[in-house]
Amino acid sequence: MAKPSGEVEVPNKQVILKHHVVDGIPQESDMELRLTTITLKAPSGSASILLKNLYLSCDPYMRLRMRHIQGSYADSFVPGEVLYGYGVSRVVDSDHPDYKIGDLVWGITKWEEYSLIKPPWQLFKIEDTDVPLSYYTGILGMPGMTAYVGFHGICSPKEGDKVFVSAASGAVGQLVGQFAKLLGCYVVGSAGSNDKVELLKTKFGFDDAFNYKGEESIDAALKRYFPEGIDIYFENVGGKTLDAVLANMKVHGRIAACGMISQYNLREPEGVHNLMLLIAKRIRFEGFIVFDHYDKYPEFLKKVLGPIKEGKIIYLEDIAEGLESAPAALVGLFYGRNVGKQLVRLSTD
Amino acid sequence: MAKPSGEVEVPNKQVILKHHVVDGIPQESDMELRLTTITLKAPSGSASILLKNLYLSCDPYMRLRMRHIQGSYADSFVPGEVLYGYGVSRVVDSDHPDYKIGDLVWGITKWEEYSLIKPPWQLFKIEDTDVPLSYYTGILGMPGMTAYVGFHGICSPKEGDKVFVSAASGAVGQLVGQFAKLLGCYVVGSAGSNDKVELLKTKFGFDDAFNYKGEESIDAALKRYFPEGIDIYFENVGGKTLDAVLANMKVHGRIAACGMISQYNLREPEGVHNLMLLIAKRIRFEGFIVFDHYDKYPEFLKKVLGPIKEGKIIYLEDIAEGLESAPAALVGLFYGRNVGKQLVRLSTD
Repeated sequence: MAKPSGEVEVPNKQVILKHHVVDGIPQESDMELRLTTITLKAPSGSASILLKNLYLSCDPYMRLRMRHIQGSYADSFVPGEVLYGYGVSRVVDSDHPDYKIGDLVWGITKWEEYSLIKPPWQLFKIEDTDVPLSYYTGILGMPGMTAYVGFHGICSPKEGDKVFVSAASGAVGQLVGQFAKLLGCYVVGSAGSNDKVELLKTKFGFDDAFNYKGEESIDAALKRYFPEGIDIYFENVGGKTLDAVLANMKVHGRIAACGMISQYNLREPEGVHNLMLLIAKRIRFEGFIVFDHYDKYPEFLKKVLGPIKEGKIIYLEDIAEGLESAPAALVGLFYGRNVGKQLVRLSTD
Repeated sequence: MAKPSGEVEVPNKQVILKHHVVDGIPQESDMELRLTTITLKAPSGSASILLKNLYLSCDPYMRLRMRHIQGSYADSFVPGEVLYGYGVSRVVDSDHPDYKIGDLVWGITKWEEYSLIKPPWQLFKIEDTDVPLSYYTGILGMPGMTAYVGFHGICSPKEGDKVFVSAASGAVGQLVGQFAKLLGCYVVGSAGSNDKVELLKTKFGFDDAFNYKGEESIDAALKRYFPEGIDIYFENVGGKTLDAVLANMKVHGRIAACGMISQYNLREPEGVHNLMLLIAKRIRFEGFIVFDHYDKYPEFLKKVLGPIKEGKIIYLEDIAEGLESAPAALVGLFYGRNVGKQLVRLSTD
């Protein structure tokens, strides 16, 4: 495709972080919409690309960027500036040799309708469009890779292992459970509503599931579902759940630390008390971040595209419409309002 | 050697646990000496052996056996009964085909002068007596193997790694530091007195060391010694030190959890708050117990016997004399009174 002649300036809505949020659940009022304009042109010599953002991904880790961060893998968002995160976009202009107009990409973009960016290293071209494009914010994007490398790469799973997944109906959890079932594991998930529990059991094929909000004691719930103990824990929540899990792990168990959403809104993280059990039970507790493992993305695609198209792996999305709804969708993650992977649709063309 | 003719009954002093000790540092008064007698004979058909105990080992993990334990690798000691633990012993009678009179062994025995036991699986024959026999309670026994498998097996060390060892002058720590130096790592240890710090620097060859009791903030001390962060932490203490270490680990760091002595005397373990950093820094935190790795004992002996005899690895022992001194020696571990590996000599013949 040829570059459009002339330079077109169009309106461009953005989501701005107003200020850092130290503790508590972030509110919509911590963000604001700003209407600006943008020229749909990648300036010559800039090696940049001009994206039209189609889908934006709401991910729990973004909470951490809303506070002052030190010593983490993620920088803080800058107050007064546009948020950024994973999304699916179409290239509308390019001054970069690797991208041409019309290319579809997923990766790090900004929370606005159009973005002029230098292609970050976390930007992948979308080749297969025989699946919903939105899947590249989820099952075929960062959360899918997270589930894949976290479960297969960190947990050393084998057939028959007893697997517990917290935040199990979320963007990552629902896949971890399905990957574990495909391998012949016994899988139980926890979630925060009875509807989510039903989904886990009926739609995602978990062997069992429970609503942690309905349990007096997570420890007692785990003892009920894992009378012989847990081989693998896929950790998405942290805090008290982690303590209860440690008390119910089997000897030589593995814990993949993917996230700790229960801690993200606290000024100081809760204390975890049962770490001596790491020794007694010889547990491996290992943190990971998906972007260390993106070299496995082609291998991952090859493994999951077929099963997705055949309906052997399913994926549930919770899609909010329009950039205006993005702040509420992001906030909703921390109230557990989303059912399945939360994302925002900006455009379908 | 022939069996002695006739059956000789001799006095046999024992150390008895009077009651479980839930919290606080155990006291000598929690134990008592009991004078009994024993017949120096392994009954025919019993498959047992009669040991004369020469050295008993005082090890921090024994604190855990003094309380009610659930779900651990170690059973509780039974109130009113003799304590047990690692020791070096001589076989004085045997009804077991694998042991003969005069054999020297190290492994699990009882805290008494003579023990009639069925050989436990943790009992190893001593072949090399060209080193002090007491070394088989330490550098050539359980603590030596612990340092070896914990450092080389769990920490994935490589030349140039920055290594931090807590309880660094203890039975295990002094060896971890030396193993790390032999590999070309930078090693800093913490200990609880200035004398121990001097030993670490002058005798054990640590690059540096500090007295944690003299530091206002462990975090600040670690930042001083590891301005670029820690690659490997050999965890012997737990609690606040662990939190400070987590804040100072490098990306892709490894923590071998060997013990958490700061927690053993507490009714409830302290909370550890910085576990989210396991994710941000992609840290592997792995507990281990030496007895899972005893198959490597011959390999270990082959590697360390030479360097020990050549003085390239040194080992410092703190030897108490006589079974009467055993309770005080054990209690002293938790006050940090021992300088080097604490053991008790019962007999030299």
